[in-house]
Amino acid sequence: MSLSGGTPLLDTIKEPAHLRKLSETDLKQVSDEVRTETIHAVSETGGHLGAGLGAVELTVALHYVFETPRDRIIWDVSHQCYPHKILTGRRERIRTLRQGGGLSGFTSRTESDYDPFGAAHSSTSISAGLGYAVARDLAHQDHNVIAVIGDGAMTAGMAYEAMNNVGALKSKMLIVLNDNDMSIAPPAGALSHYLRQLNGRDTGDSVPPRRVRMNGTAQLDESNDPPTLFDDLGITYVGPVDGHDVDLMVNVMQRIRDGEVDGPVLLHVLTEKGKGYGPAEKSADKYHGVSKFNVETGEQQKGPAGPPKYQNVFADALAQHAETDEKIVAVTAAMPSGTGLDRFGKRFPDRTFDVGIAEQHAVTFCAGMACDGYRPFAAIYSTFLQRGYDQVVHDVAIQKLPVRFAIDRAGMVGADGVTHQGSYDVTYLGCLPNFVLMAPADEAELVHMVATSVEIDDRPSALRYPRGEGLGIDLPERGIPVEIGRGRIIREGTKAAILSYGTRLGEAVKAAEELSALGFSTTVADARFAKPIDEPLVARLAREHEVLVTIEDAAIGGFATQVTHFLANKGLFDDGLAFRSLCLPDYFIDHGKPGSQYEEAGLTASSIVSTVLSAFKFDGAAEAALVEKRKSEGVR
Amino acid sequence: MSLSGGTPLLDTIKEPAHLRKLSETDLKQVSDEVRTETIHAVSETGGHLGAGLGAVELTVALHYVFETPRDRIIWDVSHQCYPHKILTGRRERIRTLRQGGGLSGFTSRTESDYDPFGAAHSSTSISAGLGYAVARDLAHQDHNVIAVIGDGAMTAGMAYEAMNNVGALKSKMLIVLNDNDMSIAPPAGALSHYLRQLNGRDTGDSVPPRRVRMNGTAQLDESNDPPTLFDDLGITYVGPVDGHDVDLMVNVMQRIRDGEVDGPVLLHVLTEKGKGYGPAEKSADKYHGVSKFNVETGEQQKGPAGPPKYQNVFADALAQHAETDEKIVAVTAAMPSGTGLDRFGKRFPDRTFDVGIAEQHAVTFCAGMACDGYRPFAAIYSTFLQRGYDQVVHDVAIQKLPVRFAIDRAGMVGADGVTHQGSYDVTYLGCLPNFVLMAPADEAELVHMVATSVEIDDRPSALRYPRGEGLGIDLPERGIPVEIGRGRIIREGTKAAILSYGTRLGEAVKAAEELSALGFSTTVADARFAKPIDEPLVARLAREHEVLVTIEDAAIGGFATQVTHFLANKGLFDDGLAFRSLCLPDYFIDHGKPGSQYEEAGLTASSIVSTVLSAFKFDGAAEAALVEKRKSEGVR
Repeated sequence: MSLSGGTPLLDTIKEPAHLRKLSETDLKQVSDEVRTETIHAVSETGGHLGAGLGAVELTVALHYVFETPRDRIIWDVSHQCYPHKILTGRRERIRTLRQGGGLSGFTSRTESDYDPFGAAHSSTSISAGLGYAVARDLAHQDHNVIAVIGDGAMTAGMAYEAMNNVGALKSKMLIVLNDNDMSIAPPAGALSHYLRQLNGRDTGDSVPPRRVRMNGTAQLDESNDPPTLFDDLGITYVGPVDGHDVDLMVNVMQRIRDGEVDGPVLLHVLTEKGKGYGPAEKSADKYHGVSKFNVETGEQQKGPAGPPKYQNVFADALAQHAETDEKIVAVTAAMPSGTGLDRFGKRFPDRTFDVGIAEQHAVTFCAGMACDGYRPFAAIYSTFLQRGYDQVVHDVAIQKLPVRFAIDRAGMVGADGVTHQGSYDVTYLGCLPNFVLMAPADEAELVHMVATSVEIDDRPSALRYPRGEGLGIDLPERGIPVEIGRGRIIREGTKAAILSYGTRLGEAVKAAEELSALGFSTTVADARFAKPIDEPLVARLAREHEVLVTIEDAAIGGFATQVTHFLANKGLFDDGLAFRSLCLPDYFIDHGKPGSQYEEAGLTASSIVSTVLSAFKFDGAAEAALVEKRKSEGVR
Repeated sequence: MSLSGGTPLLDTIKEPAHLRKLSETDLKQVSDEVRTETIHAVSETGGHLGAGLGAVELTVALHYVFETPRDRIIWDVSHQCYPHKILTGRRERIRTLRQGGGLSGFTSRTESDYDPFGAAHSSTSISAGLGYAVARDLAHQDHNVIAVIGDGAMTAGMAYEAMNNVGALKSKMLIVLNDNDMSIAPPAGALSHYLRQLNGRDTGDSVPPRRVRMNGTAQLDESNDPPTLFDDLGITYVGPVDGHDVDLMVNVMQRIRDGEVDGPVLLHVLTEKGKGYGPAEKSADKYHGVSKFNVETGEQQKGPAGPPKYQNVFADALAQHAETDEKIVAVTAAMPSGTGLDRFGKRFPDRTFDVGIAEQHAVTFCAGMACDGYRPFAAIYSTFLQRGYDQVVHDVAIQKLPVRFAIDRAGMVGADGVTHQGSYDVTYLGCLPNFVLMAPADEAELVHMVATSVEIDDRPSALRYPRGEGLGIDLPERGIPVEIGRGRIIREGTKAAILSYGTRLGEAVKAAEELSALGFSTTVADARFAKPIDEPLVARLAREHEVLVTIEDAAIGGFATQVTHFLANKGLFDDGLAFRSLCLPDYFIDHGKPGSQYEEAGLTASSIVSTVLSAFKFDGAAEAALVEKRKSEGVR
């Protein structure tokens, strides 16, 4: 697994056209070199490793057979795209993966012509591919369109909707089902059981049952096996084939490309997540996502033991309640580990449900349980809850059902970048009647808010908290419900007030200290609730201060909107109030460290200070003088 | 079809328990009476007729076999629920269907214990049913859970996500696939083709192929037919059975209820939309939704010929552009008629795509076409676009793709009520970077905005317009693109300003006239764009008036938020501005006439007048005096 042998073939490949000049007999070695390069690159950057290792031969075969970028390869989710990036002109930058200013960890249209469609959320590739295929047909062109989708992603309804349309339109396209019998977690649902039947994993057959056989030399063999689920939907099933046999895949793909099968085809490819790297193969999660690691040993770098992660604080707090409250149930959509529900599930396996990549179903499944007196917690990342938005509106909010949404990855998420930022939940939930929205300022508050949400039995509620570690403060032994719609004053001042929602509270306090030191005595309050807001508190802050600033790690339309709507319609702007709102800016923020992302977003103490000073009509020069004064006094 | 024979059996049924006391031999007559009653009721109220007529025998059989409400029947979409309402204690109120204060046109938990789950958007029933089934299992209870879902609703991804979970959890539940070979429109997609194979409709067999046969006396016959798609997903397929043979259905359901099949079962029932009422059977849409009609002739009441509907103005304007722009394509998710795309499709069949009930796929399919240089218009109702929200964020906005969203049914929708109100789109799109959001004030503006959206090639855009008829003003011969982010002044005043977004403009003008007559000279502006807002216009309105009011037919967080965010962060509140925002209230608005709904929402001229007057610090008494003065002067 060392690079000591060098990568002589890979070194000649600056773009896929160079790969296509090689002989087929070289492809195995190319694959080995790509695998080695992938492992070494990720060992330096961290990132998603297992999926890419499983797709090395598939990637090589695709770029060898298809004339990219004229032929379009669309990678679903695109955790598996690092080998693709290495082969498509991005090898030199591969060690910048997921770093600020570096390559994205996902496919990206702005990054390369070889990325016809960006991805990160799952199950979009067939829809996008069909769009490309139909556009091609309308324009009377003849290039190929390939969607590569995993067995996990196949559980999402979107993939099914797309197949239903593909099978009807009959446009030529190739869907490669990259079946590694895993999503991020082990696969959930009936489909994975079905695929195991198809691929022989259930029977342990060395030659699995094949629906349409293809082998090295023969024609397609329309076997007498019954049609697969995919054939039922009008898509010709081919496979399964060994996804680590690059020669076989090249042969099969060439024949599909050359029209041996009409219309849309699904090629079922069996791969192994983490393939070819011992430590990954042996690991339970197949090195799905790793930190930097030692290539020889596979040992991942660990930072110093830090405070507990929010996700675990949530799960443990919930488990504490579940010990005495048998009505508590928890639902995840294929993210048991990321949401902390793996911990909960170990203690309460019968009350923990992983429904697969299926946020729509997850939400309404919770609604059904709530109807029958259960207390469901839907633990879903902010960005993924977008997938279940209509269900939140139609099945939960309108019916006023007490489903609890535990919204993880709220705010900036760091290296996963633009597609994973938890930006919109406060906005898209804040407009819905009946909802209680809350956000803890720290992990102790989270414990109290879990206790609060357990008790909200008459309407839906949501609590949002960020990715990663808490502040390291003491956790209460047991959460104590806080009063709905009541915030708290953190420090009292006289001239300005900062009203924070969520974990920017620390920055607000820092800013207030600076401002007070500069002579602008500043109040800080923790709103705790975005809905209902604490109207008496907000009115008091507005009446007793010249300047009022709200801050939240969310987009426009969320907490600040609830505040301004109240201020406006109570006439609290009428006599003059220097009101400012700080929220995420109106552009998408790329991958990087969360700290830099918040700097960029203007959601740090220094931005708050500038905002307050400018609200006091300090022009730039006066502000600079103050900052100078501040520095000379060593305030910071 | 007359009631002259009376409804002697139905008259004895105040609740399903009474039905269950009847002999099986009476069920055919009960069905006939329910059908007659349904036809007569809907002839007086208008509403959804075809679906209910097709489900009469199914409804009778379900309530006969299952012990409702202890056993839960969940009707998907619930267009078909009128016979169910008639049998479950709501017959006396059935002639209030869809009227303000009357019965909802859909199932509703607040209306009856026999409605365990409200519905209206499609494909939620299996998820909700599984929630009930799991709750039952956890509580060690033994009642039955039945989800009744149509073949159209089966095309949505949500149904597939739910089946994938049902097949894995293996909880006992019955899914009745009510296959009438229709959704609102003829069915789209590969699944409907597959179902036609299963049910013999494709082959014309009188005895269709059966996977698992059940007949009057025999045991379940596990035939040698290959497993169905449903079996593949772990759900035992039974059927198909004739959905108008009530005896057969009772027999089959009893045996399923009594455990002759283990685990989850899908019962495939073949029905005919509009069954038993000649005019409906003969109609292309099977009387899906009707106005009041003459029972004898089937002739529907027509109002006087009014102005063109917004949906048709949109479609015709788009078609005009498509004549010369071959890159324009249009996509609907199973609503060709409601969106006007049936008209567009007649002229451009190759560029019109009905993808089925599949909003998620529709959005990303459009994104794929946009990547390849096409100009896709996704014509989706405001409330249904919620289903594709993540795709709008992740596939369209982040990639800045020029997909155009033609958002019909924006604002209050009338009789369809709470589940169909177009309330949230401005909010959930307004928070997304890159989007252009616009709303015409009338149908002529719509024509110009269609022209505008055609030209927006570098980013996503959306235009929203209401259900129903326009104002009846002249339409331009051809749309002329308006400048992005520029509003227009409608009338000039000096003291107050009303800034309207969308079709409330007429009310704003009325209010301004009243206010001006009362001495409060009032400006009115049409914002045209919610994003980007016309900053110079907004700043001018704020600076030159004492009072500024925004109005929109949408929820909190939309247009007003864009305005207040700008005003706040430009310091335009600092020196005092009596700002007010009028938007939909923070509760869900039920069915009724749109006019009453807007009255209730406080979005009419009189509400604007009150708001402006109170912003001028007129207390109630002063306002009453003014209103009196206004009346005496005959202003209104």
